[in-house]
Amino acid sequence: MATLPMKMLEENLNKKVTLLLKDNRSLVGTLVGYDEYMNMTLDDAEENGEVQRKIGKVIIRGSNVVRITTK
Amino acid sequence: MATLPMKMLEENLNKKVTLLLKDNRSLVGTLVGYDEYMNMTLDDAEENGEVQRKIGKVIIRGSNVVRITTK
Amino acid sequence: MATLPMKMLEENLNKKVTLLLKDNRSLVGTLVGYDEYMNMTLDDAEENGEVQRKIGKVIIRGSNVVRITTK
Amino acid sequence: MATLPMKMLEENLNKKVTLLLKDNRSLVGTLVGYDEYMNMTLDDAEENGEVQRKIGKVIIRGSNVVRITTK
Amino acid sequence: MATLPMKMLEENLNKKVTLLLKDNRSLVGTLVGYDEYMNMTLDDAEENGEVQRKIGKVIIRGSNVVRITTK
Amino acid sequence: MATLPMKMLEENLNKKVTLLLKDNRSLVGTLVGYDEYMNMTLDDAEENGEVQRKIGKVIIRGSNVVRITTK
Amino acid sequence: MATLPMKMLEENLNKKVTLLLKDNRSLVGTLVGYDEYMNMTLDDAEENGEVQRKIGKVIIRGSNVVRITTK
Repeated sequence: MATLPMKMLEENLNKKVTLLLKDNRSLVGTLVGYDEYMNMTLDDAEENGEVQRKIGKVIIRGSNVVRITTK
Repeated sequence: MATLPMKMLEENLNKKVTLLLKDNRSLVGTLVGYDEYMNMTLDDAEENGEVQRKIGKVIIRGSNVVRITTK
Repeated sequence: MATLPMKMLEENLNKKVTLLLKDNRSLVGTLVGYDEYMNMTLDDAEENGEVQRKIGKVIIRGSNVVRITTK
Repeated sequence: MATLPMKMLEENLNKKVTLLLKDNRSLVGTLVGYDEYMNMTLDDAEENGEVQRKIGKVIIRGSNVVRITTK
Repeated sequence: MATLPMKMLEENLNKKVTLLLKDNRSLVGTLVGYDEYMNMTLDDAEENGEVQRKIGKVIIRGSNVVRITTK
Repeated sequence: MATLPMKMLEENLNKKVTLLLKDNRSLVGTLVGYDEYMNMTLDDAEENGEVQRKIGKVIIRGSNVVRITTK
Repeated sequence: MATLPMKMLEENLNKKVTLLLKDNRSLVGTLVGYDEYMNMTLDDAEENGEVQRKIGKVIIRGSNVVRITTK
């Protein structure tokens, strides 16, 4: 019983996820939506870099995502 | 009830959004339109970099967008 | 009433536009045509860099365009 | 009897694989799913770099993958 | 009456064009053909860089082209 | 009688090939499979860089391949 | 009578061509095949860089090609 990537996204709706982006930025937030291109919408997002910054509601383009870590 | 990326864009029509682009530039403006490729049209756009510059009406190619922050 | 990106291009036919390209070059010219890939044809184009250079009639490949500023 | 790339992925479901990514990071984990774009889901993933870091359940976008090593 | 990018190419068949490529090289030559991907064939091509080099008949892949300047 | 790229791959099934990748790494191994995207599976693969490393069975994503040398 | 890029390739089957690649490498060889993506197969290929190296039969992925020079 494989866990397809899209299924793992679905299982993490309304849960905290961490996105690592191509520009090496990391975002933490609640996954509130996604589409077939792995574009994602996060709520209560925060950027985790040298400085921690709250950025709230955000749409991330899937083409910039390297990996999505779930809890 | 997931918030699909395209739905979040629709909800932000005529509202202020901040776009972070791949070249690390950041643009703030009123979202006045978008299409299926996440190309977007902004009104009253300003570039937020070392210098703040008014650039007015602008079309942004979706392929250059990393993330869209809404209020 | 949203202003779709393609509609904003259409509204700017025969008007001055400024293109910011991925290589950070900026071109100003009269938009005389475009297609579905945002390839564009400009007339009386000038490059706006350290040096200002007239380049006349030019076709720009849409894949190199970051943003299109209109008046 | 050729071993198609997708067949080799299938044969490695629930086995340890090592992913080398474009950003030169390397991830080890149990392959629990994949799709036609070579997006993959790993369980018990660990990052193998200067520092070894446990990252648990993770979705990797196929477009960032250079190679997949199996045992 | 817009001048579509493909139409401008057609109008410049058998005329001199200058191609600026993504690697910043510039080629001058007679446009003898093109296709829907803006792949182009040039005759009597010359590279315009620090050194000027005759390269004769050449096929240029459209994906490397930034802009095409016509006379 | 042209030798199409896919045909040359087929002729080299179960033979040694050398892959040059975009990250400048070079891999040698026995080609045991490939698909329409030039994703390939190698057996007994070795990395040929400053250090020579055995990596065994491996899937290479075609999008990272620059060239494939055959014997 | 335009010379389409694909037609120029066809006319150069079994002739010497020089490929300039995105990584700035240059390859000379006899064109023995190609496909719709401009993937090409060369025979008696040689790399023309600081050092000249014989590499024999080779498949080149079209996505890495900048230009193809013919005689």
